[in-house]
Amino acid sequence: MSDATLEFLRSVVGDENVSVTLADREAHSLDESHHPPHLPDYVVWPDNEEQVSRILAYANEHRIPVTARSGGSSLDGNPIPVFGGIVLCFYRWDKILEVRPEDMLCVVQPGIVYDELNRQLARYGLMYPPAPASHDVATIGGMVNNGSGGMHAFRYGVTRDYVLQLRVVLADGRILKVGSQAAKSASGYDLVRLFVGSEGTLGIITEVTLKLRAIPEKSAALAVFPTVEDAARAASQIIAAGIIPGAMELMDAETVAFANRYCNLDLPESPMLVMEFHGTPSSVREDVEVVKEIAAECGCTLYQPATTAEERENVWRARSQAHLAVKELNRDCVVTIGDIVVPISKYPDAVKMAHALGKKYGIRVCTFGHAGDGNVHTDTIARRDVPGEPERAHQVHAELIRWAVEVGGTCTGEHGIGLGKREFLELEHGPAVAVMREIKRLFDPNGILNPGKIFLD
Amino acid sequence: MSDATLEFLRSVVGDENVSVTLADREAHSLDESHHPPHLPDYVVWPDNEEQVSRILAYANEHRIPVTARSGGSSLDGNPIPVFGGIVLCFYRWDKILEVRPEDMLCVVQPGIVYDELNRQLARYGLMYPPAPASHDVATIGGMVNNGSGGMHAFRYGVTRDYVLQLRVVLADGRILKVGSQAAKSASGYDLVRLFVGSEGTLGIITEVTLKLRAIPEKSAALAVFPTVEDAARAASQIIAAGIIPGAMELMDAETVAFANRYCNLDLPESPMLVMEFHGTPSSVREDVEVVKEIAAECGCTLYQPATTAEERENVWRARSQAHLAVKELNRDCVVTIGDIVVPISKYPDAVKMAHALGKKYGIRVCTFGHAGDGNVHTDTIARRDVPGEPERAHQVHAELIRWAVEVGGTCTGEHGIGLGKREFLELEHGPAVAVMREIKRLFDPNGILNPGKIFLD
Repeated sequence: MSDATLEFLRSVVGDENVSVTLADREAHSLDESHHPPHLPDYVVWPDNEEQVSRILAYANEHRIPVTARSGGSSLDGNPIPVFGGIVLCFYRWDKILEVRPEDMLCVVQPGIVYDELNRQLARYGLMYPPAPASHDVATIGGMVNNGSGGMHAFRYGVTRDYVLQLRVVLADGRILKVGSQAAKSASGYDLVRLFVGSEGTLGIITEVTLKLRAIPEKSAALAVFPTVEDAARAASQIIAAGIIPGAMELMDAETVAFANRYCNLDLPESPMLVMEFHGTPSSVREDVEVVKEIAAECGCTLYQPATTAEERENVWRARSQAHLAVKELNRDCVVTIGDIVVPISKYPDAVKMAHALGKKYGIRVCTFGHAGDGNVHTDTIARRDVPGEPERAHQVHAELIRWAVEVGGTCTGEHGIGLGKREFLELEHGPAVAVMREIKRLFDPNGILNPGKIFLD
Repeated sequence: MSDATLEFLRSVVGDENVSVTLADREAHSLDESHHPPHLPDYVVWPDNEEQVSRILAYANEHRIPVTARSGGSSLDGNPIPVFGGIVLCFYRWDKILEVRPEDMLCVVQPGIVYDELNRQLARYGLMYPPAPASHDVATIGGMVNNGSGGMHAFRYGVTRDYVLQLRVVLADGRILKVGSQAAKSASGYDLVRLFVGSEGTLGIITEVTLKLRAIPEKSAALAVFPTVEDAARAASQIIAAGIIPGAMELMDAETVAFANRYCNLDLPESPMLVMEFHGTPSSVREDVEVVKEIAAECGCTLYQPATTAEERENVWRARSQAHLAVKELNRDCVVTIGDIVVPISKYPDAVKMAHALGKKYGIRVCTFGHAGDGNVHTDTIARRDVPGEPERAHQVHAELIRWAVEVGGTCTGEHGIGLGKREFLELEHGPAVAVMREIKRLFDPNGILNPGKIFLD
């Protein structure tokens, strides 16, 4: 740790906004994933873009790693500062700078939490649709960097589809504004979407302009099935029927059981689809009925429109907290979450395969996720003290990913590559990885921005 | 023209698939824009990707410009080979390679025409939504390269939102597959969207995998207003009411008059909104009624639900052919089409400003476009033989673009930068242009791919 660096950081942001205490470094050493923490050398709370620019220019000159952090709720180590250096904190940058309801857009700082943004937008009858399960802690900056999806992705798209404009500080300190406030543009290269999902490896995002949607009418339903494959098959058929649910989430029996215990609920402990229908008052009523028929054809044993706000809330709490429930109720275990996406017709196979691999490797497996867009989350639960179990859990994920890529899918739908999926990047993208590396070198020739992520070195 | 190059090209694609005749070179020297043609040296019809790769590697080594071409219907000179060299033709690559209705995707060659693709998809109850006005000639390859939008963009998004995977040949001959067949992905950098809209300056696209949508129920309506500002205001208010029309197109009185003459129609020659509503049978009925009320509040003098297929067809023909009508009925004039997009609340101002600028510079102006997403097309009609008129028409566009950028908009929503908007790139993007240039150099260090486009040199 260089004192000169500490001096410099203090001179830029003030003494009170730099910390080298162990407590602060520990608090900024991890995320919500299973990856081991790694201490940064400096924790810095910048106050404005100009400070970010000065810090990056300095770090670039002195080859000091810089990792941006806001909510810290990512699931694959994305903000863990594996090479130490500076963690730049943005969670205090939590302001909505502008809401323009007439233009269906807002301008926000990267540290604002998803739920808080939507709470404020609701006053205008507007929403920012992509809804990660961690909506109560995930920040917009993190969502942009990870290319997050969420429960509304099938109907509304993912983060990428809502970012109109970004302010970004490059590794050398240059400040860019990319994109525009127009709803669409074909003007030059799409730098916005190059930064979205780049996990802080190409630049540091300091401001985000988001496209918004009007809040639609909603209805909801819960459908219980004998097997998880039946539930997945129902999901496929609902989509094939041309219905675009606002959300269509799958949970297997194990996941529901964990969620019941953790959230103190009493949902039926069977595989289920949890759905929201968005649209006009009449279209959502229609959807509930049409889906009921499809579900029945797939063997649905209980179809329960969630009529009261409380019923809806309980069901959504179960789904949102699913991964957390599995993790918290298995604290002596390594819980690793998978994030494959497959072409939708393969969704039932994906769920089946996750469970089959669990059996094959003797690993407890929970599956849940976004049935609308083919995204399966697989939690593997591996006892730390049973030799070989964590390694076998890794095999479950590895085989599942290899299969997903083989059928045309991707190793990650919304969590990003982070640390845990680097070994699959080449498998999925082949020669395109070389191009990604060239882009990385172009933007960050000294490799200071969130080093160790996305690429295996 | 080097004989060695001709020899080489013949050896790769066969004698019959290279031409240096004046007729062929002329046929490949222009697009649908006002820009003067420029002859390529060689016209080449490659047969497969491997040939494209060999040609690019050769061209790269010998610094020969290569411009890809398919439909040739672009509106800003995008495929005009301004530095000569090789035009690579893809309009014979017009096959649908695969339709996977259960996965809601298709794999196509770049030369397939939009209408033809949708004709084939309709058998599966599916559609590829982005609908350029030139739907009967525009190809998917051209749409991908230009980042095309179209009449359904507000509801469904633009080309960018539908490209899942691309096969691309780089300047040095490397063949890449970018993206996946998953509905969403957060795996590495978003190379798909870097290629989309890059106008053939970063690579040559040889295969496209597109996300599809189920064909919805449809209804349509035409609303006539006393002034074009009233029509634009109605458009803004319809959106603010949370309605998401399948299409919402504006035409001013002049445009309707040209379309009537050109298409032999008798639409009322007043400013109008032409709308389609997509959804369920009941939601589209609701939309027609709600929009009727909003239109009435904005002074609508005639509201006509298009009930018969013929009525709908006529209205859409008028809008689709609008620019062609203006151009064909003014063959002694330079007709230049503008493509600004502004934040939607500025849409009425944009239309008003286009007409005011026409008045200021003494230039006839027609406005039409996609009122749903703030995209105004402005046709200026400048007599060739009146000294100064084409220059004054240019001033109309330049002032309009400067204003659009000032209010947060973009100089091009769906036509691309091409030749005509290069001078505004810096104005719109500032320091980000330097980054775009660095990306261009990274992908195409010898500057062989569609040189002279996007960037002013």
